[in-house]
Amino acid sequence: MTRNSPDAGTPAERIDQVVAAIGPLDEAAAQAAREHQDRLTKPRGSLGVLEEVAVRLAGISGTCPPPLPVPAAVAVFAADHGVHAQGVTPWPQEVTAQMVANFLAGGAVVNAFAAQAGASVTVVDVGVAADLPRAPGLLDHKVARGTADLSAGPAMTREQAERAVAAGIAVAEALVGDGARCLITGDMGIANTTASAALICAFTGRDAARVTGRGTGIDDATLQRKIEVVRRGLAVNGLPAHDVPAIEVAARVGGFEHAAIAGFILGGAAARVPVILDGVIAGAAALIAAGIAPGAMEYCIAGHRSAEPGHIAALEHLGLRPLVDLELRLGEGTGAVLAHPLVSAAARVMHDVATFDSAGVSEKE
Amino acid sequence: MTRNSPDAGTPAERIDQVVAAIGPLDEAAAQAAREHQDRLTKPRGSLGVLEEVAVRLAGISGTCPPPLPVPAAVAVFAADHGVHAQGVTPWPQEVTAQMVANFLAGGAVVNAFAAQAGASVTVVDVGVAADLPRAPGLLDHKVARGTADLSAGPAMTREQAERAVAAGIAVAEALVGDGARCLITGDMGIANTTASAALICAFTGRDAARVTGRGTGIDDATLQRKIEVVRRGLAVNGLPAHDVPAIEVAARVGGFEHAAIAGFILGGAAARVPVILDGVIAGAAALIAAGIAPGAMEYCIAGHRSAEPGHIAALEHLGLRPLVDLELRLGEGTGAVLAHPLVSAAARVMHDVATFDSAGVSEKE
Repeated sequence: MTRNSPDAGTPAERIDQVVAAIGPLDEAAAQAAREHQDRLTKPRGSLGVLEEVAVRLAGISGTCPPPLPVPAAVAVFAADHGVHAQGVTPWPQEVTAQMVANFLAGGAVVNAFAAQAGASVTVVDVGVAADLPRAPGLLDHKVARGTADLSAGPAMTREQAERAVAAGIAVAEALVGDGARCLITGDMGIANTTASAALICAFTGRDAARVTGRGTGIDDATLQRKIEVVRRGLAVNGLPAHDVPAIEVAARVGGFEHAAIAGFILGGAAARVPVILDGVIAGAAALIAAGIAPGAMEYCIAGHRSAEPGHIAALEHLGLRPLVDLELRLGEGTGAVLAHPLVSAAARVMHDVATFDSAGVSEKE
Repeated sequence: MTRNSPDAGTPAERIDQVVAAIGPLDEAAAQAAREHQDRLTKPRGSLGVLEEVAVRLAGISGTCPPPLPVPAAVAVFAADHGVHAQGVTPWPQEVTAQMVANFLAGGAVVNAFAAQAGASVTVVDVGVAADLPRAPGLLDHKVARGTADLSAGPAMTREQAERAVAAGIAVAEALVGDGARCLITGDMGIANTTASAALICAFTGRDAARVTGRGTGIDDATLQRKIEVVRRGLAVNGLPAHDVPAIEVAARVGGFEHAAIAGFILGGAAARVPVILDGVIAGAAALIAAGIAPGAMEYCIAGHRSAEPGHIAALEHLGLRPLVDLELRLGEGTGAVLAHPLVSAAARVMHDVATFDSAGVSEKE
């Protein structure tokens, strides 16, 4: 990026530019999609939630029928968390870096699901607490080697949060620039369900005991400790509070991957490309994005409902209905990638299916 | 089929042969799949329902990892219903034949979804009330030009029911013979949610008012009439009754497509190929199949949960959990085809994902 390019400037300026570029859905295209649905050879409304998806895709792209959401690109944002020191998870912190290597080698579940869906996988280091060797498919946007411990004070500075959001914007722009017509959120970060719970409490006002879950699997004692850590993090950071900007909430109790995914959503919305959200980490990140630019949510499709209780709270707050509900609790983008064929099917109907007139099928009497 | 072939005989004999060929799942392969899941680089159990799917696929195929369920083949069984005369639907009966033409022209939603999933679509006339021109992709197994009116007496003779079941078996065998490694049920038949409701009442003992739904969309008065028609059909046919064989229940209140789909399930189970079930028609058909051969249910995967209340009753009775839940109420196989990528993803994990050892990822402490 050079000083003279139109998107030059500080991370805060970049965020402002992108937010200003997010427009409303194209209501004419959405209405055309609704009307087209009703002419297709199927009972009205019989495709249920997928009809709403098709209408949304039309509104996002501004065309009816909407383009198929291909190619799709998964971005897995990886970062570490200072709150790991509080014993909120039995997984060692180095697993974050080890899993980055696994993603790059194609050996993780998100790779298998993405191969099945025909999606690419890009890994973004926004704050892994290790030096990662350069590798194809790995983007270096490291803000710091992990956040500070959110239970003892702010997880990051405001400027770090802005850099992470700007990194997510840059990744979205790069993937769309390379031809992606659907963005899929992914994450990796040992202890990131703890930061997610804190963010969800801060944005929705719910109690920590209701939104803090077992993440990848913890025992009762660890869950109780995790809830207390979330409570302490909120208290020490003065949250929830109505007068704190979303980016500042992200800085106080979020993770770098949350901030980056928020930017990724903003970047997708500004590019008028649908963004399929994964589970609880994406849900928490979407709350940040919605706080920065509420209109960005119109560009989001909730890929799945995770087993994590905070995710349901986030989805309810955002008014999003998930497409896949299979008790997944893995992250990485896995639930969102599983939803991609459903989104494609919703779009495909608008291209391939005959109308009552064209097929000579009688309508209801 | 010749008299000397090993599968010669009457339809009843063919059914007996196929039932005898249905074995239990391979518990050693299923157990190997469970153990392999636990070595993969993901928290144990974190793929939720998809882990159970992968284990079932291993048990079905008898191998671990299980083969990918490809190629997949959708069979859309089409038939008409004498009960249409009772005014249970606003759609004219000729729509069944019109939609068969639409399927063959590739213009229906199931075609769009199948193209998306890479599945073939075969249409089977098991009882359409019209003479259908021969066409590529259309199999002629017509038993009669529609059933008799189930609200006035038996919908078909026992021999007709057996012929329809045998037709479904033959279609499953033909598709598997052509290389299909996953069978997907589809249906088309104006008024077939009425017969489905009657079947579900007969097999589960539930009240007609609880399992009869709005099908493709009917008003309150039509719904009330439909419920009364189902009640009358059960009463006039002496159902529910514990001493009536499943094939006889199918004959009294079923449709040709229900009986054929039951045979399709039996044929898939005998061939050790997974069968993905669509919505309420498939659910009612699965109750017939389970009545004939309970072990066949081990080979079934519930593709989706339809908006039809009877479907939920059928799934509960069968102990099946649906993969997709998007308020679809279209039939044709659409919900089952949407589930196919999820089933493929479950299998793919078993092939592609690294183990903790192979990837050098640390395990939980």
